[in-house]
Amino acid sequence: MPPENGLSRREELLAVATKLFAARGYHGTRMDDVADVVGLNKATVYHYYASKSLILFDIYQRAAERTLAAVHDDPTWSAREALYQYTVRLLEQIAENPEGAAVYFQEQPYITEWFTEEQVAMVREKETQVYEHVHGLIDRGIASGEFYPCDSHVLALGYIGMTLGAYRWLRPHGRRSEKEIAAEFSTALLRGLIRDEKVRVETPLGEGSVARA
Amino acid sequence: MPPENGLSRREELLAVATKLFAARGYHGTRMDDVADVVGLNKATVYHYYASKSLILFDIYQRAAERTLAAVHDDPTWSAREALYQYTVRLLEQIAENPEGAAVYFQEQPYITEWFTEEQVAMVREKETQVYEHVHGLIDRGIASGEFYPCDSHVLALGYIGMTLGAYRWLRPHGRRSEKEIAAEFSTALLRGLIRDEKVRVETPLGEGSVARA
Repeated sequence: MPPENGLSRREELLAVATKLFAARGYHGTRMDDVADVVGLNKATVYHYYASKSLILFDIYQRAAERTLAAVHDDPTWSAREALYQYTVRLLEQIAENPEGAAVYFQEQPYITEWFTEEQVAMVREKETQVYEHVHGLIDRGIASGEFYPCDSHVLALGYIGMTLGAYRWLRPHGRRSEKEIAAEFSTALLRGLIRDEKVRVETPLGEGSVARA
Repeated sequence: MPPENGLSRREELLAVATKLFAARGYHGTRMDDVADVVGLNKATVYHYYASKSLILFDIYQRAAERTLAAVHDDPTWSAREALYQYTVRLLEQIAENPEGAAVYFQEQPYITEWFTEEQVAMVREKETQVYEHVHGLIDRGIASGEFYPCDSHVLALGYIGMTLGAYRWLRPHGRRSEKEIAAEFSTALLRGLIRDEKVRVETPLGEGSVARA
């Protein structure tokens, strides 16, 4: 089998499994179901993925990479601009692959059952990076006087819940674009954190952005 | 069997099933597992719940009742006060039964597989009530001039994600009380919505509350 073919079949298999896991759960999907829908026999499926849990781990790694791509900082950004940029990128990633995001969150409580300790550690490490990015940005804004003092730990958890939780309802080509939704979330939250009245009213999303209200 | 006994056994059974469903998922838990942990034979378990899905539906109804108890409005409240009160009550309910909340959210994507159409409709109806409460409060604040104009639909979804998503990390007797966490969330979000500078700084959580920063 030529490698190009192998690659695209593997991708197809992954896409089908993601759809099935999202709809029925990992536990409720058998390798036979995946093979049936993708139109391969089970032996061929096992050629690409030696076990069902390796498919799930692949979905996890790709979702984590997409999320980490949203965690990008630029030293010239203010804290509010960096938080806004994180939100835009994250929502764009979720809208690009809502089913991958759904599988990620839906299976999260049970991963210790499916993954090895090493795999679980890899997942947890990436989650920590996202939390520390958001937490660190809020702390940076407090330290510089840009933001009001607040419990940055609790607000980071809340803001991550608000943004990542969008996988439940965010769809590509929905009524509002990801950028508009990110601007709504960020404007509301950042206006609430910013101390300076002029900054708050005029550039709540940072210097690079235009205030929306 | 005396009814008192029956009642408390049923409650015990429900508590055990909730713990198991939260940890392993509904699909990954068998009635045998529930019977084993609670120390009853399977026939006795079926005496209390004729099917596994009836246990899940009981968990759903109780979680929905707790959430609806948080959806309480008082015509004398400003929009910001009502949003704050919703948040306090909701977080208190989650902290009181984090496993029930976890089962509710974790199984939500699959309920059409386990529940009858009528049961699904009951669940959806209660979810709509929560969404409409939060959405309506934001609209009320916009209409009265208390809040900035914003996309109340998107912000209601975001705020619900921020507050309900707390089941992932909120624990009773944690570092911060539910009331403190609610105040952090509400202060940040409401300061972001409130137009009047004096109100925003002095009473972001409403007249009945004292500003925290």
